[in-house]
Amino acid sequence: MEEDKSSNTIEPQKEAQRNPLHWPKQAWTHFELVRQKSPLIQCITNFVSMDFMANTLLSAGASPAMIHSVEEIPEFTPKALGVCINAGTLTPDWLPGMKLAAQVANQSKKPWVLDPVAAGGSNFRLKACLELLALKPSVVRGNGSEILALFKGCVDSNSKGVDSVHGSSDAVEAAKSLAQQSGSVIAISGAVDYITDGDRVVCVHNGVPMLQKITASGCSVTALIAAFVAVDPSHAVEATASALAIFGVASEIGMDMARGPASLRTLLIDSLYGLDEATALGRVRINRL
Amino acid sequence: MEEDKSSNTIEPQKEAQRNPLHWPKQAWTHFELVRQKSPLIQCITNFVSMDFMANTLLSAGASPAMIHSVEEIPEFTPKALGVCINAGTLTPDWLPGMKLAAQVANQSKKPWVLDPVAAGGSNFRLKACLELLALKPSVVRGNGSEILALFKGCVDSNSKGVDSVHGSSDAVEAAKSLAQQSGSVIAISGAVDYITDGDRVVCVHNGVPMLQKITASGCSVTALIAAFVAVDPSHAVEATASALAIFGVASEIGMDMARGPASLRTLLIDSLYGLDEATALGRVRINRL
Amino acid sequence: MEEDKSSNTIEPQKEAQRNPLHWPKQAWTHFELVRQKSPLIQCITNFVSMDFMANTLLSAGASPAMIHSVEEIPEFTPKALGVCINAGTLTPDWLPGMKLAAQVANQSKKPWVLDPVAAGGSNFRLKACLELLALKPSVVRGNGSEILALFKGCVDSNSKGVDSVHGSSDAVEAAKSLAQQSGSVIAISGAVDYITDGDRVVCVHNGVPMLQKITASGCSVTALIAAFVAVDPSHAVEATASALAIFGVASEIGMDMARGPASLRTLLIDSLYGLDEATALGRVRINRL
Repeated sequence: MEEDKSSNTIEPQKEAQRNPLHWPKQAWTHFELVRQKSPLIQCITNFVSMDFMANTLLSAGASPAMIHSVEEIPEFTPKALGVCINAGTLTPDWLPGMKLAAQVANQSKKPWVLDPVAAGGSNFRLKACLELLALKPSVVRGNGSEILALFKGCVDSNSKGVDSVHGSSDAVEAAKSLAQQSGSVIAISGAVDYITDGDRVVCVHNGVPMLQKITASGCSVTALIAAFVAVDPSHAVEATASALAIFGVASEIGMDMARGPASLRTLLIDSLYGLDEATALGRVRINRL
Repeated sequence: MEEDKSSNTIEPQKEAQRNPLHWPKQAWTHFELVRQKSPLIQCITNFVSMDFMANTLLSAGASPAMIHSVEEIPEFTPKALGVCINAGTLTPDWLPGMKLAAQVANQSKKPWVLDPVAAGGSNFRLKACLELLALKPSVVRGNGSEILALFKGCVDSNSKGVDSVHGSSDAVEAAKSLAQQSGSVIAISGAVDYITDGDRVVCVHNGVPMLQKITASGCSVTALIAAFVAVDPSHAVEATASALAIFGVASEIGMDMARGPASLRTLLIDSLYGLDEATALGRVRINRL
Repeated sequence: MEEDKSSNTIEPQKEAQRNPLHWPKQAWTHFELVRQKSPLIQCITNFVSMDFMANTLLSAGASPAMIHSVEEIPEFTPKALGVCINAGTLTPDWLPGMKLAAQVANQSKKPWVLDPVAAGGSNFRLKACLELLALKPSVVRGNGSEILALFKGCVDSNSKGVDSVHGSSDAVEAAKSLAQQSGSVIAISGAVDYITDGDRVVCVHNGVPMLQKITASGCSVTALIAAFVAVDPSHAVEATASALAIFGVASEIGMDMARGPASLRTLLIDSLYGLDEATALGRVRINRL
């Protein structure tokens, strides 16, 4: 909607001068909505991430359901407020369930979020991710390499599987084009997270480098995005930024006491559960590019 | 056996006056038996719970085996002292293994325990859970919504997936009827846990609310019930109450130091591993309704 | 190579007198190589272990990829520097991927490591493990019971699933013969770990008993072996010993602060991540038998 966009075209500096708490307050509002509504989020995700993802959603106040069977998707998915689809440990027998859940979510006017794990790792995986992308997810969240693979539509010969070999900033222009082509909001995780609808680009500066040493931290934040977008589906860019910032803040608080990746993971979940408004407002760092 | 029942029909107050340590001592005896015998417990469970479930059994002294292949059940299941079957991330291809393991356990006179996760979530799931129930588990453990779904035999339009929308006390009468119809002991988890064989109802008051924020905590306590019933199969009501109480006590001890759901999970496992008799006797709270 | 062997045939005492830091320094060198090269390790493993295994590899500096689909193995496996194949929650549909990955690794001259979980638990499982063994893994890592089952080629009527009923020392002679027959390095985990190529036997004395109370700790160390062998494939015995020692040292450091199995697991990962040279050199205990 052009009207909305034009009314929002405030340069970051001016916006920050006018109201430096605009984004932090919005992130907190989204988080409070998740805690209040406790949205049911259906997750079709890889085996590695299921435990951490479910605990992330529970600690944030959402209600996870790890349900992937084609037999119950037509009946169950409409009850969910959002769906998270993750290509992690992909095999051909999981694809029909993923596609069906995406279609049922679309029919039910519920947002669904795609995590194209290691999209550039093989042609089989890339093809599957592109087929899912064609089903119009509300949001796609990946690292720089994954977003570039989707944009280029070809496998990455330097792929290191799930780990990115590209910085998030390398993929911003690709993300903008991909958002324009696909109609999805594209989020790139990294040292800075970038979220774009093809027009605006929003940056999130929260998080700690050690998150890369925790398996499925990216998968888990994608599920959190699904929960945040589920409670505010008409503002997917903002809700995505809020989820990335809140998850990042929880990791920063955890990092103050962590001795390594495993204690950080524990502390992150605990911090997400216990996060209060003052801390969130003081720590959330979001701005427009 | 009527004789046994009649000799046990002591009102809770009288029982508590006569021997307030009756139930705590019984719970401790069951737990000691698990530690001594280290029963091999075969678990056919959902992907989310496998890690936490296996660690729960190991920390309690049991020996878990996460084996679900139809090809090895006829040979492996008879070696197990108990079987835990959980409908969590159900797909049609897992059902034959679940049913076969239940049948082999029955033939081997070994107890098996059913966890009908989200039984009311879809017709596919409900049908599968009812088919498993027809194979006569020793114990069924669910939350209020799951037990009500099994009792009513219809899906729950308010289902929130794995999370209960009914309190445990709402389902007590349904559990009694279901126990009478099925011949299984029915256990309802919640703020108070209720265990019934259709005649007696035993209540367990241990546990903390934050357990609901840990994924697969219900699944894990079901596996612990399998271990406890495996070492005392002729007293399934008592062994089930003991398992629920000991798990609850471990969570209470953990809660004293927990900063949130993730540290609680860690502390729960540690407390289960280190639990001593004095603490158990001082904390176990079981009574008859 | 006879030349190499003869030049290495130093008795342990003499070796220790000459250079007591020979093995610790070698272990540290291997670990530093893993941290520097960050080898991509493809893991085809059981559902229970995926999370802990991936986190073990990440905390050690390696890059895990949990990819098991036949569709992408021909394209993806050649990118990996090592492959870990684990028979944990085996079903027939996973075997073709395991075999194909082993074959592609062989064709790509990359080491692959086999974890024959509960090999003696059933004939189905034993047959599958023997078929994988015939594909010539660089290293096989199991507990005493698993190695004995592979050596004898028959199921273990006393099998307790994944838990060993044999001490590691009971299986040393079987391991030597198995190594000679198979051409693989055989590693037996236990109170003392034994690693043999059929000629030499190397012992690792690091680790703590409580590791047996953490599910998938054996699986995880097998993946770590894959990472260590990946960075020094021509010295599989030494790299295997190094991986077992470094993992053991991390568990010892963790044990100083652990309150039970769950906190030990967290501390183990943290310690692996933070391990420094002085601590490693002071703690690694390896010798030749």
